[in-house]
Amino acid sequence: MIKIAIDVMGGDFAPLEIVKGTLLALNKNKEIHVVLYGNQKLITPLIEKTPFFGNNQITIKHTPYFLRSADKNIRDQLKATPNASLFLALEAAKQDEVQGVVSAGATQTLVLASHLILKKMPLMQRIAIAPMFNSFDNRTRILLDAGANTELKPQHLHTFANYATIIAKEILEIPNPQIKLLNIGTEPTKGRALELETYQLLSQDSNLNFGGNEEPQNLLTTSADILLSDGFTANIALKTYEGTMLNFMNHFKTILTKNLIKKMATKTLFQKPLQQLKNQLDPRQIGGAMLLGLNKIVIKAHGSSQAYAFCQAILQAQKLIKAQVNQKIAHSLESAKNKETQSKQASTKNTAPKTSETTKESQQSL
Amino acid sequence: MIKIAIDVMGGDFAPLEIVKGTLLALNKNKEIHVVLYGNQKLITPLIEKTPFFGNNQITIKHTPYFLRSADKNIRDQLKATPNASLFLALEAAKQDEVQGVVSAGATQTLVLASHLILKKMPLMQRIAIAPMFNSFDNRTRILLDAGANTELKPQHLHTFANYATIIAKEILEIPNPQIKLLNIGTEPTKGRALELETYQLLSQDSNLNFGGNEEPQNLLTTSADILLSDGFTANIALKTYEGTMLNFMNHFKTILTKNLIKKMATKTLFQKPLQQLKNQLDPRQIGGAMLLGLNKIVIKAHGSSQAYAFCQAILQAQKLIKAQVNQKIAHSLESAKNKETQSKQASTKNTAPKTSETTKESQQSL
Repeated sequence: MIKIAIDVMGGDFAPLEIVKGTLLALNKNKEIHVVLYGNQKLITPLIEKTPFFGNNQITIKHTPYFLRSADKNIRDQLKATPNASLFLALEAAKQDEVQGVVSAGATQTLVLASHLILKKMPLMQRIAIAPMFNSFDNRTRILLDAGANTELKPQHLHTFANYATIIAKEILEIPNPQIKLLNIGTEPTKGRALELETYQLLSQDSNLNFGGNEEPQNLLTTSADILLSDGFTANIALKTYEGTMLNFMNHFKTILTKNLIKKMATKTLFQKPLQQLKNQLDPRQIGGAMLLGLNKIVIKAHGSSQAYAFCQAILQAQKLIKAQVNQKIAHSLESAKNKETQSKQASTKNTAPKTSETTKESQQSL
Repeated sequence: MIKIAIDVMGGDFAPLEIVKGTLLALNKNKEIHVVLYGNQKLITPLIEKTPFFGNNQITIKHTPYFLRSADKNIRDQLKATPNASLFLALEAAKQDEVQGVVSAGATQTLVLASHLILKKMPLMQRIAIAPMFNSFDNRTRILLDAGANTELKPQHLHTFANYATIIAKEILEIPNPQIKLLNIGTEPTKGRALELETYQLLSQDSNLNFGGNEEPQNLLTTSADILLSDGFTANIALKTYEGTMLNFMNHFKTILTKNLIKKMATKTLFQKPLQQLKNQLDPRQIGGAMLLGLNKIVIKAHGSSQAYAFCQAILQAQKLIKAQVNQKIAHSLESAKNKETQSKQASTKNTAPKTSETTKESQQSL
């Protein structure tokens, strides 16, 4: 049994689509048990009116409190309403009552609340938001960090690269996933100090299949399975992509349906392939964004998730939990640290003692 | 008479389209005199076979040398082949033989060569690449810095904001151009330290019509006339936009022309509006990118410029020269400096003497 906590009250279409999506996931995978956090008076009727027979897969934990999208200061909110649905779901994960959490609430709220309640994994300096995105070529790719950290160091990106490689192996089932660094040019000398140093770190790591820099015009066609960048840059690229896509779709639609004849011709000839293209590129079709680096699996479903999208996010959480991704990552971080310690000891033996430089990263920048 | 130097040998379609575009510009504007730098044996036949009667508008300065796109180290190139067409064009501007330079050669080459030969304006700490871009709403906007500086300080962006405001007034003829800061969110607290500090500087400057932050999904629909960002971020946004646009166009084309019936229907019903849309968004239709902050006007025409696009770039240079943009900017920088000095003196009188912090920016990061 895989136990997942659901924040029933988060998202634009909560609680209706969240509950429907949850039941869909339970019907698809009998191994999942969900704990629903939210208003029981709203949840129970929704469950009762849906054809569903696996009632032993559901526990409802009633709370009348939930976070509103305008709630900005999460530290204050946590003190004021510790019983908000999202906080309770994360607390359950912290207490090992569940193995993961899925929410369609606001991204920054989820990131900060997860950080405060669940904490980072030992040896993990930062957490990352890692959405998966679909493309014209029907391949699914991972982009990180999509916005958890506006400023990152090369070492952080290096850790994220290793982390995402494990995810791509386990979830996308790619034996040797290729990783590329999002940059303004392909040469190793392109970019800021961050890109130059990260490029060196990634090329020297034999555990990674590093493919060099990738320019953002190839976001949708890159050979890479994983695209790596800091949270500010990746967020700029993602939002530019989304805005351009939406603008184009709308303008093409206007052209294709300008009058009755055009409307009819479009419907007859092009409706099906255009709808296919739209679905193919809809990020909601493939699950949510993973929050990487926390002590439990946390999935951020899209805010506009309807039932199918939310179901996909739950199935994604189930996959990550079943594949023991967090344990594998903890192990990988541990080995990396041991290797580093060994090489430091070796170099201390071989050379004259040096003043060692240590850097402290006590606070996640959010 | 406005004298403009043309690097005839730069660009994917040089020298043919460059010469054709130049003649087009001369036919449109009799006030322009061009000095063509390049291989006379190639240039003369191209001029002779084009219907054109304003021969007193043209001077040819022969040189067999030109830069190849693979030429990376511009300092070395400048020593090795000081007679390359681009170097001679910039040198002519330096010697006041011409008032501006237009080239369709590689961007970074042009930026660095301009920087080495023409030098920055006094009081200008960095130079910026400022392309204009068209949008669905038929408005032309300025984006800067589109790639000259991968790392910038808030003070640099503040100077660019003032600079671009003058350009928008003179060239786009907008009386009170609005400027926005490209960012991952609209709140003043969003972004990196760079965005937070720049936001404060811009909001405190009464000479600017600052409209706050703009998210990149609104790149094509923003209320702003000027979008401001560092060279890395703006380049990421631009390239993401270009890649997405191209990918979509290609995929829609495939769908619309899949078989003979669809091809015929598309041709009959949609060809004209689709072509219009394509032209409307083609950045080459509106001129080149301005290199801001140099002692002379320099325009970077698109590398893939054909005659019309190159003609537009020349007309843009003519406009900037005629409007005495550089003089106006020098004046504005001077006033800003005086104001700063006065307020420093005032505060020195009013308060106890402090150790003053000075920062030196002797080197353009390229």
